[in-house]
Amino acid sequence: MDFKSQLLQRKGRVEDNLSIYFKDKSGFQKLLIEAMEYSINAGGKRLRPILLLEVCEMLGGNIDDALPFASAIEMIHTYSLIHDDLPAMDNDDYRRGKPTNHRVYGEGIAILAGDGLLNLAFEIMLEKIYINPHLYERGIKAMHVISRSSGVNGMIGGQVVDLESEGKKVNKELLNFIHLNKTSAMIEASIKAGAIIGRAGKREYRDLENYGKTVGLAFQIIDDILDVVGDETKLGKKIGSDVHNGKSTYPSLYGIEESKKIAFNLLERSMTSLDGFGKEADFLRELVEFLKVREY
Amino acid sequence: MDFKSQLLQRKGRVEDNLSIYFKDKSGFQKLLIEAMEYSINAGGKRLRPILLLEVCEMLGGNIDDALPFASAIEMIHTYSLIHDDLPAMDNDDYRRGKPTNHRVYGEGIAILAGDGLLNLAFEIMLEKIYINPHLYERGIKAMHVISRSSGVNGMIGGQVVDLESEGKKVNKELLNFIHLNKTSAMIEASIKAGAIIGRAGKREYRDLENYGKTVGLAFQIIDDILDVVGDETKLGKKIGSDVHNGKSTYPSLYGIEESKKIAFNLLERSMTSLDGFGKEADFLRELVEFLKVREY
Repeated sequence: MDFKSQLLQRKGRVEDNLSIYFKDKSGFQKLLIEAMEYSINAGGKRLRPILLLEVCEMLGGNIDDALPFASAIEMIHTYSLIHDDLPAMDNDDYRRGKPTNHRVYGEGIAILAGDGLLNLAFEIMLEKIYINPHLYERGIKAMHVISRSSGVNGMIGGQVVDLESEGKKVNKELLNFIHLNKTSAMIEASIKAGAIIGRAGKREYRDLENYGKTVGLAFQIIDDILDVVGDETKLGKKIGSDVHNGKSTYPSLYGIEESKKIAFNLLERSMTSLDGFGKEADFLRELVEFLKVREY
Repeated sequence: MDFKSQLLQRKGRVEDNLSIYFKDKSGFQKLLIEAMEYSINAGGKRLRPILLLEVCEMLGGNIDDALPFASAIEMIHTYSLIHDDLPAMDNDDYRRGKPTNHRVYGEGIAILAGDGLLNLAFEIMLEKIYINPHLYERGIKAMHVISRSSGVNGMIGGQVVDLESEGKKVNKELLNFIHLNKTSAMIEASIKAGAIIGRAGKREYRDLENYGKTVGLAFQIIDDILDVVGDETKLGKKIGSDVHNGKSTYPSLYGIEESKKIAFNLLERSMTSLDGFGKEADFLRELVEFLKVREY
């Protein structure tokens, strides 16, 4: 099977699991569940949950144990997009070619749908651990990593600095803080959580952590580059939004060519961090190759 | 010591613990931490964390084990108020006599401060359990209860139905759904979490659960009544906001006198549910008496 088919197959597995949590619409809060499901189903690469499951599986871990953690990370990612798109934040009308949550459900429901997804993420992880005592220790460790990475010293911290910096020229240190926290933190957390559930050894864990750090940052830099030179049809969104929102990015600070070099360098390092693994890490390697040629 | 002094002393203990989590403002996300701390420090009765600690203590449990759970519940309560006050929701400019979070920090930061508090709540509970393996089982059970009560089948579910129902006449069933979820759920969860950390027996747990359910609903009904007939100076907020926001309440559906009767009846039942306990439950009993005479 080629890499794209493998990616699609893994995406399907994530989406099947995600759908379970939005089936029950029998309560008075039906509209809330619909709004949450709308954004969960609005597409997306499912990169984070795919990475979590992949890492767990390549270590010989049990996919069933890992699935709720993968879905939880996608819920956290999705809630952050719903809140990010709000008029008080990036004020985006479309995401992935579809109207954003608040454009469909109104701002109040969109805020609550985001809150609901963040809360549900913890709920489904806790539910899994609660009924599977063999997961107590690993589950707590994985949730601990995820909660730190999604919080004020991770994703939310990055978002607030990103918001504060709009229209201002930021320096390289601050831009790195934003990227490392806003995007990389949750990508790295996905890999670490998968490693924990898959019972990684100390060295495996460290190597995978390095892989996550470098891939996560490279991913964001490539995203910045595509927002300048990407193909709108392939991307499914308008380019130029960073410039429009007055955001400092890698291309705006380093230029396109230098940004590409930095991203490719990071991807090289992520490749090296997999040297201790055999064939079982081939999917992670191919992902790096895939990022290199992404929609240019 | 009289009840009010006991209440104050317990409030101090909660606030001392809460302050720990907002000390570090050395990072780039300083403004976010400030915004979160602003609303945490904006006053409040601290009813939920006080109940959690009290229940744990009366069962002979360890207060140190319970403190992060108490602070977490106050963080969840506070985030829900920040988001509730936003223009897209209740659009309130003042809470407890102080400007609401978005009036001070702007809507974008207020949304993120709320997100940050919800996330931090789970973070601090997980941190506590992570470094104290003797808390694995009880910690997971307590977090499980809290996460369910704060989520789409609890507090957030109640909020969304409340928001949808503004300006509409709701029936008694729907009003009960809103109250039981929006307010009672987290009060009940505080008591249950305290019971779990304090190693309550089955029967103790059931009795305390009943106490939480009845006190929680009575508390909300009394709040509704005070919004009609309360003393603004004593309450620290404007009365009449429910009518202003077109909200159905107990007084609007049942009238003041009947609402009082229902609330007092619930408080009688909460008193009865403590019959199996001795003197150690006196604080919980006095709290019921206190609610009966609250600011009328």
